[in-house]
Amino acid sequence: MLDSDHRDRPWTEDVDIVLVQPRNPLNIGAAARAMANFGFSRLTVVEPYEPHWREAQSAIGATSLLQNAKTAEHLADAVAESTLVASTGTRNYRRPEQRVLTLAKFAPIAAAELARGGRVALVFGSEKHGLTRDDLSHSHIFVEIPTNADQPSMNLGQAVAVCLYELSRYSSSNVSVLHPSQTESPPEKHTESTEPLACSSALDLLAGAIEETMVATGYSPALMRGANRLDLRQQLRRLSFTDADAQRTLRLFRRILFRVHRPKE
Amino acid sequence: MLDSDHRDRPWTEDVDIVLVQPRNPLNIGAAARAMANFGFSRLTVVEPYEPHWREAQSAIGATSLLQNAKTAEHLADAVAESTLVASTGTRNYRRPEQRVLTLAKFAPIAAAELARGGRVALVFGSEKHGLTRDDLSHSHIFVEIPTNADQPSMNLGQAVAVCLYELSRYSSSNVSVLHPSQTESPPEKHTESTEPLACSSALDLLAGAIEETMVATGYSPALMRGANRLDLRQQLRRLSFTDADAQRTLRLFRRILFRVHRPKE
Repeated sequence: MLDSDHRDRPWTEDVDIVLVQPRNPLNIGAAARAMANFGFSRLTVVEPYEPHWREAQSAIGATSLLQNAKTAEHLADAVAESTLVASTGTRNYRRPEQRVLTLAKFAPIAAAELARGGRVALVFGSEKHGLTRDDLSHSHIFVEIPTNADQPSMNLGQAVAVCLYELSRYSSSNVSVLHPSQTESPPEKHTESTEPLACSSALDLLAGAIEETMVATGYSPALMRGANRLDLRQQLRRLSFTDADAQRTLRLFRRILFRVHRPKE
Repeated sequence: MLDSDHRDRPWTEDVDIVLVQPRNPLNIGAAARAMANFGFSRLTVVEPYEPHWREAQSAIGATSLLQNAKTAEHLADAVAESTLVASTGTRNYRRPEQRVLTLAKFAPIAAAELARGGRVALVFGSEKHGLTRDDLSHSHIFVEIPTNADQPSMNLGQAVAVCLYELSRYSSSNVSVLHPSQTESPPEKHTESTEPLACSSALDLLAGAIEETMVATGYSPALMRGANRLDLRQQLRRLSFTDADAQRTLRLFRRILFRVHRPKE
């Protein structure tokens, strides 16, 4: 389904694996190993606990993948170029506000986004408390690995392995899944567009303009800005903006702001 | 596809996870955790390295699953009741003689065997050297997780997680895979029979009678018995004997042996 021959680079290079505040160096190493097993190479670690991160990078057997991993201060920076951001976890701990899909349903959607030239980020929370509501607000989709209710929470390294196994089913080198008709369910369209989605930084820029407009027009009391910001982020991601949509809307809000801020004559 | 309501116990109780000579207690714990995540409970450890096995069982957070795990001196004992035995690994290290299937192709076959009342065993080799040719001779199928050629070998705990994730797609509680038409490929029939396959101990009994016949009739020089034994084990497993087939054939060979051993009149 994903054929690297028609692209200027392997499709796996358009997939970012993002670990938010990982603690255990063994888990970081295990995540990196699973990435290498399934041919992924782009790892970003957000707010790592520095001593453990250094330990993971300097461990015997640590791959160039770990040594080339990027660090980010905030999840927004890690996913800035991504057009489809998916958070992973179990719903037992969180009530996500975005669309919830099983891993099996998500994989063909990710493949379709990659096929139209988009970039996908898979975000994993810390071992201890998973992803916060603020973290989740950066995602389009919440991906759930169906697990047993008695022991729902997966080990970080194992969750990464299972997710990348499922994604790699859609690689063109995996002959058993070359034909869409053979996939578990018809690849559900995330959007009708053949353009990739707007990247996260474009949506954040738009969200900033909308928020400024809300404040300038008195739509939103300043006290509520924190909560509204998360809602807005989520709404923009639910709408599946293409990049052109995002640019057009951003121009509109800039025009509105220009009018609102112009001193009355 | 697998509906526990129509059985006297959950289908996961007819699946044995077998670790052959595992070394690292963390890996044993990780395998047990993945089993709990996906609702599996039957763990057998073959020839464990005792100090590490005790360490894994007594670790903080070790589950009842680990404490109830069985140990076996030989793989044959661990899979004696299993009607479909699958070994896992990458082909880079071994040239398996049995049918090789990707994990995605194997899962529906395992589900079909469970649905007709059979028992499935999934066998994982040691971290260091995988499964030996003798180990492999007890399997019907070699299951391959498609991995990258540069880093094909998966961590034990991650391999267990990926295999059980794939198997659990066929659970009736996982609504996304209730309909066979939705599966990745039509569930390939392992055998045309609606009966479960013969269990491994029945095949071993039959293999013993055949081997004795080979020796008694001078078919096989005694020197070659070791290698022949592995070939024979494999041939019997390739033939997909039902239990009735195995019993019938065993009776035939016992009859032959009776005739061969009867002193000439």
